[in-house]
Amino acid sequence: MKNQQCMGPEIAGCSFSIHPMSDDFIEIITGALKNVDTSKVWMKTDDVTTTVRGKLIHVFDVTKAIFIHAARTGEHVAFQATYSLGCPGDSAGDVYMAEDDIAVYNSQVNDIKQPVAAKFSLYPLGGGNYMNVIMEQIEAMKSHVDVSHAHYSTRLDGGAINVFEGLEKVFQATVLGGSSHTVMTVSISANSPSSKRGGNRE
Amino acid sequence: MKNQQCMGPEIAGCSFSIHPMSDDFIEIITGALKNVDTSKVWMKTDDVTTTVRGKLIHVFDVTKAIFIHAARTGEHVAFQATYSLGCPGDSAGDVYMAEDDIAVYNSQVNDIKQPVAAKFSLYPLGGGNYMNVIMEQIEAMKSHVDVSHAHYSTRLDGGAINVFEGLEKVFQATVLGGSSHTVMTVSISANSPSSKRGGNRE
Repeated sequence: MKNQQCMGPEIAGCSFSIHPMSDDFIEIITGALKNVDTSKVWMKTDDVTTTVRGKLIHVFDVTKAIFIHAARTGEHVAFQATYSLGCPGDSAGDVYMAEDDIAVYNSQVNDIKQPVAAKFSLYPLGGGNYMNVIMEQIEAMKSHVDVSHAHYSTRLDGGAINVFEGLEKVFQATVLGGSSHTVMTVSISANSPSSKRGGNRE
Repeated sequence: MKNQQCMGPEIAGCSFSIHPMSDDFIEIITGALKNVDTSKVWMKTDDVTTTVRGKLIHVFDVTKAIFIHAARTGEHVAFQATYSLGCPGDSAGDVYMAEDDIAVYNSQVNDIKQPVAAKFSLYPLGGGNYMNVIMEQIEAMKSHVDVSHAHYSTRLDGGAINVFEGLEKVFQATVLGGSSHTVMTVSISANSPSSKRGGNRE
């Protein structure tokens, strides 16, 4: 972690992977990354993850659109992401902060019905009553999707749009609630052949 | 989170997913889960992740063996895991604590050469000088594999066995160092067609 600089809570970011369980995985991954408008964020892909950095609204908008694009192929697709904001070890570079707060994809994808099953975990770092913050936000998630207990995470069942909406709201509320360094991880599964739940809130 | 009970730091656990980027993903996943000896842990698979709970040594041993089993198919396989110990919201059930500390797979897999690229993040929750703990453990990781900076994580390049050895040591040191609630996430990629690095410490 060279050239560390505390940039405050402005730069949100996400390190994520799309895993299509298909021989066509390269076409599905590159298709999703290329066909989504990422002009409002900084984005870079390597052989492990793709990193997106910018304003919180655009980071969620772009990752949601990339997942939806991959899931709409109908293949079994898993999405793994770590969202982060306020890391004291974060660097100042590798970011593009679009001036506006207009999400590119919200109006385009909000009608898409894509049932998913997900597990998310919220980590407000640096102390305080972090377990209370987590419990509050699990409660808040119930207004978006079906919520149930899982080990080391909270299970979410519903439409992909509702899951991403819930994740963005919960993350934003944790930041606005005073968490100086917020991390949230999520695993989302679409079109799983072993799915017995999911999508029942569509 | 019903029936919560603080169990102290004894029960380690991991919620993980294996993602083979192949049409044969079902056979690869079920093959890995079925053929690994999981008798020393509690394990349950649903449509999003597999959860393993037990003694720390066995949780790492079993997850390492499952990943190695899947990666040895030669397919591009991604492994995503969250290791956790000491969560105040953890429940007492769903666990099997084998009495011994003899890892089933250490002697069987330690000669396997499987280059991987990985990104890991350590989250000591509950306050304190958590950034110092993270920086210390990133330094400690350098004795196991090649370590480089990545956004929101630390990149590891080397053999799969060395990566898992480093992850277990770092997690254990964080717990023994006094962290009351320790979380560690890792993304590991094997046999990636886009890999330009990895395995150079084999």
